[in-house]
Amino acid sequence: MPTIDRAGSTARVAADVNELTGSDYTLVPDAIRRYAYTDVYKNTLDYFEAQFEQLGFEVSYDPVGTFVARNRPVGEPVFGIGSHCDSNRNGGPYDGTLGVVVALEICRLNAEHRTDLPLQVISFLEEEGSAFAQMLLGSRIMVQRVDETDLKERFIATDDGRTFWEHAEEAGYEPERWRESSHVLDDLTGWIETHIEQARVLQDTDNRLGIVNAIAGYIHGDITVTGRSDHAGATPMDFRNDAAVVAALCVAELERLALAAGSGTVGTVGELDLSPGIINVVPGGARLSLDVRGPVDELVAKVIQEITAFAERTARERGLQASFAQRQTFPATPMDPRIVAALEAAGDAAGQPFRTMPSGAAHDTMCVADRVPSAMVFVPCRDGISHAPDEEADPADGALAAEVIFNAIQQLV
Amino acid sequence: MPTIDRAGSTARVAADVNELTGSDYTLVPDAIRRYAYTDVYKNTLDYFEAQFEQLGFEVSYDPVGTFVARNRPVGEPVFGIGSHCDSNRNGGPYDGTLGVVVALEICRLNAEHRTDLPLQVISFLEEEGSAFAQMLLGSRIMVQRVDETDLKERFIATDDGRTFWEHAEEAGYEPERWRESSHVLDDLTGWIETHIEQARVLQDTDNRLGIVNAIAGYIHGDITVTGRSDHAGATPMDFRNDAAVVAALCVAELERLALAAGSGTVGTVGELDLSPGIINVVPGGARLSLDVRGPVDELVAKVIQEITAFAERTARERGLQASFAQRQTFPATPMDPRIVAALEAAGDAAGQPFRTMPSGAAHDTMCVADRVPSAMVFVPCRDGISHAPDEEADPADGALAAEVIFNAIQQLV
Repeated sequence: MPTIDRAGSTARVAADVNELTGSDYTLVPDAIRRYAYTDVYKNTLDYFEAQFEQLGFEVSYDPVGTFVARNRPVGEPVFGIGSHCDSNRNGGPYDGTLGVVVALEICRLNAEHRTDLPLQVISFLEEEGSAFAQMLLGSRIMVQRVDETDLKERFIATDDGRTFWEHAEEAGYEPERWRESSHVLDDLTGWIETHIEQARVLQDTDNRLGIVNAIAGYIHGDITVTGRSDHAGATPMDFRNDAAVVAALCVAELERLALAAGSGTVGTVGELDLSPGIINVVPGGARLSLDVRGPVDELVAKVIQEITAFAERTARERGLQASFAQRQTFPATPMDPRIVAALEAAGDAAGQPFRTMPSGAAHDTMCVADRVPSAMVFVPCRDGISHAPDEEADPADGALAAEVIFNAIQQLV
Repeated sequence: MPTIDRAGSTARVAADVNELTGSDYTLVPDAIRRYAYTDVYKNTLDYFEAQFEQLGFEVSYDPVGTFVARNRPVGEPVFGIGSHCDSNRNGGPYDGTLGVVVALEICRLNAEHRTDLPLQVISFLEEEGSAFAQMLLGSRIMVQRVDETDLKERFIATDDGRTFWEHAEEAGYEPERWRESSHVLDDLTGWIETHIEQARVLQDTDNRLGIVNAIAGYIHGDITVTGRSDHAGATPMDFRNDAAVVAALCVAELERLALAAGSGTVGTVGELDLSPGIINVVPGGARLSLDVRGPVDELVAKVIQEITAFAERTARERGLQASFAQRQTFPATPMDPRIVAALEAAGDAAGQPFRTMPSGAAHDTMCVADRVPSAMVFVPCRDGISHAPDEEADPADGALAAEVIFNAIQQLV
């Protein structure tokens, strides 16, 4: 493996990230806000276009605007790298963008070290869903996880209520050719996405990289508890059917079940509403959201089954009713063992601490992995903060990710 | 004790209640909504005025508009009965009004049976706080639990933002003489208020009356939990400082502590907010309201102490912080044992099932008891529903309350 000038690589990554926090690249001054078909998003693509063209890459766009840069003609095998460069509406400089910057740095290393690896960079459209409230939109279009009615009617711009289709046409793309987006993946022999971790595991365990061996699947849903509202002063404890207590017992039980399930399974109650929600009324109703995820689908399903049974039983024992309704679900995505192993070997060679781990968050790689052997590399972010203006990551860790992926690809192609 | 014509008494109570649900007596057609200084409230007072004058009572008003009717000259001892006839903004026909109707029926029994008991009826102004968001306002003015700045500046009409003082003057009263309201209680040798129970204890235990031996005191406050918000997918269970879980454990513990305290102590979490309150974010903050009440102040204080210590300890053990802040507190009000005993004897004599019990809800009697030996009688209300248009009570139970109080007063004066 070639010896990398880490300081030089770090400086380039830092410069790219810094450039893309400028006023040309965000709709608001106090956060990064950029999304599909805005001028600032176009400026961001233009920046990458210029950088990749300087390295001799050919830049193109799929029919809806996903960015593609490759150093081999179409039809020849290439190894894919990249991420997305749109942001959350109140976002920071790293979520997504760092992954495209790292891909750019890998291409620079490829030039500097004359390794001539066959590469294709992708920056997916609308990962965050800021424009049309549809997460992973570009990668879902690419693997045909949408239908034409979604694009023409259902996916509506948050800003003006007009359809995705209209906006895509207005931006100069050809949404009627959306199915052809799938060809972007045709020549890929593998895919590695770099992304900030969005949690504190790497920071708190003193690791500089995460090598992702699975992306968690999830089930989202709600438990609804129905009891009866009563006067909080006049109703003795043993006359109550208090929905808040049943809801509370479910919150505590979900934690226990997720811990017991193990293997990276997590369970969260992020929303909890009491009804009527007045200090002096025993709540007659409660709703709690469930977000259960993990790399092992069976364990996720088991936690949902068990918390539902617990809620129903606990409610019944207390003279209330409880039921679970699913909002949505997505299966876990295992990463490709050969790519993971190559990344681990490159990580060992780099001599810097890394951790092989699942991703709890969703990423475009969940779609890419439908068709291409895939993996991901995580870079630590300070205190796990993401989707916020004070999101922070160390450019040196980004450069380390570039080095490790660059060296891994050399083993893989 | 005289033999009461229960059917006749029931018919009169039913007729009074029915009359006062008419369109002259409520601001809205689909609920009872009447409060201080509105025309419909004035119509209600006029109805009672006419009824009591027919029985030979002299009607007057205290300086802010509390209704007084007595059958003895000022300066002579009288026994007090009554309640309030204002309603919750979305109220029903019974809360408050039934107590004044029962007082009227007692006065009718007094005439019918020529017992010539010395009686004074009070219908307190603004028990519900619908006009100025001040509960027990008339009785608090009477026992000087307000100050002049409250009345002149702080107590503001919900409808138009003008002061209580202005509204009282405009209605023809003399708020500058508010301190003289205290004289209403000067001649009272005792006081019995009748009220619907506002809970399900009487219904569910098949009792037709409740004889109140104490009005619960209460502490209202909030526990605030501060942890950290994290990505619900990306943050393993053992990296979390989840405020929802601490809040949930507090809800369950409060139930346990209230049950353990016994003696009628109750504890309720009616409000629970998670922050940021999004399905896929581990809550970094939580706030839960506490409403702890009971007839024994020491037990109420103990429950608050214990739940605060529990919250602090549980938060600390999990790397979060928790603290309790009090909103307001009111001590318990014991009822007069002699009056309670007289009511129990009269209840036994009536041969109908009753239950001696604390009141968990607040009532004007909490103020009257500052100066006058007091008790209360509860009438069951269907399913414990109050403060709602479908509030319902049986006029026969109201008539039974009148009979029992009428007979008790004969033993007391």
